[in-house]
Amino acid sequence: MVYPEPIAKLIEGLMKLPGIGPKTAGRLAFYVLSMDEEDVLDLAKALVNAKRQLRHCSVCQNITDVDPCRICRDPKRDRSVICVVQDPKDVVAMEKTHEFHGLYHVLHGALSPMDGVGPDDLRIAELLERLKTEPVQEVILATNPTIEGEATAMYLARLIKPAGIRVTRIAHGLPVGGDLEYADEVTLTKALEGRREL
Amino acid sequence: MVYPEPIAKLIEGLMKLPGIGPKTAGRLAFYVLSMDEEDVLDLAKALVNAKRQLRHCSVCQNITDVDPCRICRDPKRDRSVICVVQDPKDVVAMEKTHEFHGLYHVLHGALSPMDGVGPDDLRIAELLERLKTEPVQEVILATNPTIEGEATAMYLARLIKPAGIRVTRIAHGLPVGGDLEYADEVTLTKALEGRREL
Repeated sequence: MVYPEPIAKLIEGLMKLPGIGPKTAGRLAFYVLSMDEEDVLDLAKALVNAKRQLRHCSVCQNITDVDPCRICRDPKRDRSVICVVQDPKDVVAMEKTHEFHGLYHVLHGALSPMDGVGPDDLRIAELLERLKTEPVQEVILATNPTIEGEATAMYLARLIKPAGIRVTRIAHGLPVGGDLEYADEVTLTKALEGRREL
Repeated sequence: MVYPEPIAKLIEGLMKLPGIGPKTAGRLAFYVLSMDEEDVLDLAKALVNAKRQLRHCSVCQNITDVDPCRICRDPKRDRSVICVVQDPKDVVAMEKTHEFHGLYHVLHGALSPMDGVGPDDLRIAELLERLKTEPVQEVILATNPTIEGEATAMYLARLIKPAGIRVTRIAHGLPVGGDLEYADEVTLTKALEGRREL
């Protein structure tokens, strides 16, 4: 082994992170050596705390450090609308718009028979349970515009509609700032289909 | 704040690493949540250990967990040759060739008046001290082929030569597997200058 053991171990640990190969891990490890000891300790603590203190909200299944999560316990949120998303990161993306004031439900994935992900692997049972007990009037399906996301949305719509709850899907179309010329055919077709009167 | 505090802190900590912006830090932080707790603890420990257990070798100034470092204390190394490099990473690169069996000296940088790095900021005094006490016959200057690296090599050569020690500079030229067509003029000029009879 060429590196002293402590740095070899750090490189090995960093390489377990996604998108970090041996070169990047080496660069990061050497940078760590030049950091203040306090910063390194903070980072190490943050790693352990993030892993230990975060759990899934018992209501919306989003990751949280308090249960129920801050969104579910916020009295100002509109409890009649639930936005269903695939991942905790999608909640963050939605929150950044400041346009949605309802609650969320995080599925933690999308239906994908190819990868062996079925309805029981997602938090669908928890969603249906919420619809029974909470005063929900609309479910917005905000799964990703991919084959898996679409399939999940279709599946959920078929389950929820019979209960008399309004089910909507977020719009597909051209992204703002995008260029018609570079849009793929499917997006363009969806944009045409979803056209609205001005 | 949109993220729960433990994950926000982790993102903040990761963003202190070089080349990691908010997006990458977020992706890494969420990945950490999905890792085994044991792996996360290992990584946190590796961070702290790397910072705490590594120091500079009192002889060659390379980073090490034992002092003197494993190379300096290896009886099989040739003590008559010292290879001077800028960074600990350069030692690793040299060791990978398996062609150099002497000792090293790590400067921890190169002379750079623009960045305020003078001779006193590098481990030059330590090198000169070694040349007085150790049986050194040749000093190979392997600083980087950059303006700063060249200037440092010239500076060291002028200091060391009067002591009657052989001073050499690693060769500049076309990298193996490179293409003449794409070589820059300076490299090509150096390659011409350094041509050898076959």
